[in-house]
Amino acid sequence: MTTLIDGTTTALRIRARVAEKVAHSVRIHKRAPGLATILVGDDPASAVYVAAKRQAIREAGMRDVHHTLPAEASYPAVAALIDQLADDPDVCGILLQLPLPKGLDSAALIDRIPVTKDVDGLTTASAGLLARGADGLRPCTPAGVLWLLDAEGVELRGAHAVVVGHSELVGRPMARMLLQRDATVTVAHKHTVNLPSITRLADVLVVAAGVCGLIGAEHVKPGAAVVDVGIHRTDHGLRGDVRSRELQGHAGLLTPVPGGVGPMTIAMLLANTLVAFEQGQP
Amino acid sequence: MTTLIDGTTTALRIRARVAEKVAHSVRIHKRAPGLATILVGDDPASAVYVAAKRQAIREAGMRDVHHTLPAEASYPAVAALIDQLADDPDVCGILLQLPLPKGLDSAALIDRIPVTKDVDGLTTASAGLLARGADGLRPCTPAGVLWLLDAEGVELRGAHAVVVGHSELVGRPMARMLLQRDATVTVAHKHTVNLPSITRLADVLVVAAGVCGLIGAEHVKPGAAVVDVGIHRTDHGLRGDVRSRELQGHAGLLTPVPGGVGPMTIAMLLANTLVAFEQGQP
Repeated sequence: MTTLIDGTTTALRIRARVAEKVAHSVRIHKRAPGLATILVGDDPASAVYVAAKRQAIREAGMRDVHHTLPAEASYPAVAALIDQLADDPDVCGILLQLPLPKGLDSAALIDRIPVTKDVDGLTTASAGLLARGADGLRPCTPAGVLWLLDAEGVELRGAHAVVVGHSELVGRPMARMLLQRDATVTVAHKHTVNLPSITRLADVLVVAAGVCGLIGAEHVKPGAAVVDVGIHRTDHGLRGDVRSRELQGHAGLLTPVPGGVGPMTIAMLLANTLVAFEQGQP
Repeated sequence: MTTLIDGTTTALRIRARVAEKVAHSVRIHKRAPGLATILVGDDPASAVYVAAKRQAIREAGMRDVHHTLPAEASYPAVAALIDQLADDPDVCGILLQLPLPKGLDSAALIDRIPVTKDVDGLTTASAGLLARGADGLRPCTPAGVLWLLDAEGVELRGAHAVVVGHSELVGRPMARMLLQRDATVTVAHKHTVNLPSITRLADVLVVAAGVCGLIGAEHVKPGAAVVDVGIHRTDHGLRGDVRSRELQGHAGLLTPVPGGVGPMTIAMLLANTLVAFEQGQP
């Protein structure tokens, strides 16, 4: 029996709890957390993502502070906007939607976001706090994966967790976070030799390779927990990095695509914003 | 046949090259890099380590800027000294010897060192740069391990590297640096179940567990490269985390203790200082 992990419901439950706390803060302190989103240019996928985030921000009762800059915006223009939001006491979180138009230095712009307002957890400062095991805001997608595993009661201490993919946004911070939870952690990627022999070691397999249908039954130890971070638009609808039909009755736990990790990312963004807000309160 | 990796000679060769470049800089620019060491209290082991570092600093032709503070030095006193060295244009590297006396917040004091002068690579900012795969000064011990592996021509891309130990000083940055070199990387530690089954996967095995004689022949795939970061004073002399006699004729490459990784740490400190100096040049 394979249990499908319902990320949609878990995410909504988290968002409801965040909304409750925001409502409480508004009643008591007369203040709501402000979350600023910045969209540069008109990439359609980015526009959709930002719209979804803004709707969730408003549904949580937070202040939706949005700025759109034209695709040809200069580095100083984007930097000035970030600096202005960094100084704004009514903004407790800043999200710069990636990717930026070519020619803009994403890493340098992200690093202008103060670590206390880095609700995406993507600045060098936040990465350093995570690397050192210190408290800090964590990247939303790996945080969502951990939350789902915890919600299902998956024991991480001593488990062998294998992460496929070593991207800066997901794979690397995911590995670090699993290590902090005392899992034995392996990171595999496109240079890995004999991938199935590595992934079959996993009690917990997190797939964030960005390759549609990369992982099938031959990659998975029977009974393992499999988390699929991939999302791909195909002629047959949305698909993940995992060939999920092959894993039915084979994996112990499996996150579907859609409805698994995806919805958790926004929930974690709101949870991070609440933390940033509460830590910024006098 | 097991090849013993001679860290002593490699380290001396690096130090000779650093000394040459320092001498060149002194001739041309009339300036030598200044490396400041701070020893707080009178821990005998720390005193020995700092003395060894200072001798190497002088032998490299660098300026040896040393400060000793009493064991009862307050946090503000240590912080003020770090701030003064941070502002000193004649100091290009700052090393705060650890461990500090109990009661002093090491992490906060380390983080006062500017990232450009962080020749030990231990600040949150340096950890963040490493985590993000950006340029920066790397922690000396894992940098020394990589140098030795490179010097022996060990192919890292696609190799399975297993790191035993997930300390902040060695295990974690080591894993990150091996991943950056496109190795498949596993981190094992005291919560790992069936350690030999994990370590036997390794083409490259880096042992930094801090447990004397932890690793024997049963942990090692025949022909693997084994790097022993441990160092323990025993009744039979210095020993590592690896039972090296068992690995003779079994491992492909092996670092001895002493004379393996140990001497590389100081060599990397000097190499980092030279980088910090050159980057700080007008």
